[in-house]
Amino acid sequence: MPRFKLTLEYDGGPFVGWQRQDNGVSVQEALEDAVFAMTGERALAHGAGRTDAGVHATGQVAHVDLARNWAPFRLGEGLNARLVPHPVAVLRVERAPDDFDARHSARARHYVYRIVNRRASLTLERGRAWAIKPRLDAEAMREAARALIGRHDFTTFRDAQCQAKSPVRTLDRLDVRREGDAIAFEVSALSFLHRQVRSMVGSLVDVGAGRWNGADLKAALDAADRSRCGQVAPPHGLYLARVDYGADAAK
Amino acid sequence: MPRFKLTLEYDGGPFVGWQRQDNGVSVQEALEDAVFAMTGERALAHGAGRTDAGVHATGQVAHVDLARNWAPFRLGEGLNARLVPHPVAVLRVERAPDDFDARHSARARHYVYRIVNRRASLTLERGRAWAIKPRLDAEAMREAARALIGRHDFTTFRDAQCQAKSPVRTLDRLDVRREGDAIAFEVSALSFLHRQVRSMVGSLVDVGAGRWNGADLKAALDAADRSRCGQVAPPHGLYLARVDYGADAAK
Repeated sequence: MPRFKLTLEYDGGPFVGWQRQDNGVSVQEALEDAVFAMTGERALAHGAGRTDAGVHATGQVAHVDLARNWAPFRLGEGLNARLVPHPVAVLRVERAPDDFDARHSARARHYVYRIVNRRASLTLERGRAWAIKPRLDAEAMREAARALIGRHDFTTFRDAQCQAKSPVRTLDRLDVRREGDAIAFEVSALSFLHRQVRSMVGSLVDVGAGRWNGADLKAALDAADRSRCGQVAPPHGLYLARVDYGADAAK
Repeated sequence: MPRFKLTLEYDGGPFVGWQRQDNGVSVQEALEDAVFAMTGERALAHGAGRTDAGVHATGQVAHVDLARNWAPFRLGEGLNARLVPHPVAVLRVERAPDDFDARHSARARHYVYRIVNRRASLTLERGRAWAIKPRLDAEAMREAARALIGRHDFTTFRDAQCQAKSPVRTLDRLDVRREGDAIAFEVSALSFLHRQVRSMVGSLVDVGAGRWNGADLKAALDAADRSRCGQVAPPHGLYLARVDYGADAAK
């Protein structure tokens, strides 16, 4: 069966997350329903990242197998027409090799976390960023973040429910930039533990607010103890921005 | 009475526009209600730009006169707390001279119009930009826009209901830039006619889509005839971004 690689954007607000669950509509379900409405096939959509409830995506990737060899453009148009009730859009459709797997073939995942740091509450960006009133020291956060880069046991920064076998991950990037009132975290790794980005960002905000210093963050990491994590950042500031694959991921 | 200059941000979506009207809630009313809730005073809020229903602002300016000489920071905090049910925020409060007038003292108004030009419908930016599927030629729009710069009779590009005495305005800037799928128009003038920005942007989109060429746009301007206007861009892509005043506008 032809395999298709779909690049997706969504507003995570109304969803229970990427993955199908009993307690509400998931992005996966919305996508699979659109596939069924268009093709009559009950195909499974496999996502590169299982974003939590409320987490957004500007570049999630999924693959589906379909009986018919659809022209990618036509498949994208048809899915988008059927996705309209949901804030989910198919940005790109490509034919992929049979051994392409959105999750297992990924070579890097890139997340962005957005904070708006000002006194006034959010209007146009409500639900699109974490609003924090007290002034944060972005430079202190950027400095402290360096301790997290590289290969570590990230037990402190993973959710208690995380099902990954190993708590060891290699963090390739954790940049913090301020532009006016906006603070953006750019975070990259081959893969992440459950709630790892939100746990790291929340703990860095504790540094930016002066509740922790860089040494506290480093000590929390080294402790490899979930109870040493700072606050966990809310989901609505987080975006799955891009997933990288090898050059052979599309044909 | 002390006069205060307020810089405002709002999501225009739920409002009937800046100005008080009988058919729904206006931004002016939301602000005046917040002023009353905080100060007990029924003060009138005078805005720099009377944005239409659905038009957003990231830098609207208004002035209000209050009996008490509030500390600006405290006034801003109190108003924001009371504005929370509405997507309106006070970004800045300054004491202004008695002769400062948000509307009449303005030396330049800056609008931004945002288009997302892609096949997929909008998710995170729904209600925040005009979604246009067919590929637009941004370079052709940028070129054609040059005919609109300068002092002209803008009758073609003003709403039939426009109440300004003269249709002559001087357009200082109309830049068109594409960044990926996003197209931004940056438009500046001392003042604008009613729906002038949306009329110009809509007509430029006719150029970008190949329905008009630059000469058609120029001929439409020269005709000084409202029936020669192209399409009018929808309100939800428009932002009142900034209003400029002289250095003496805050004290």
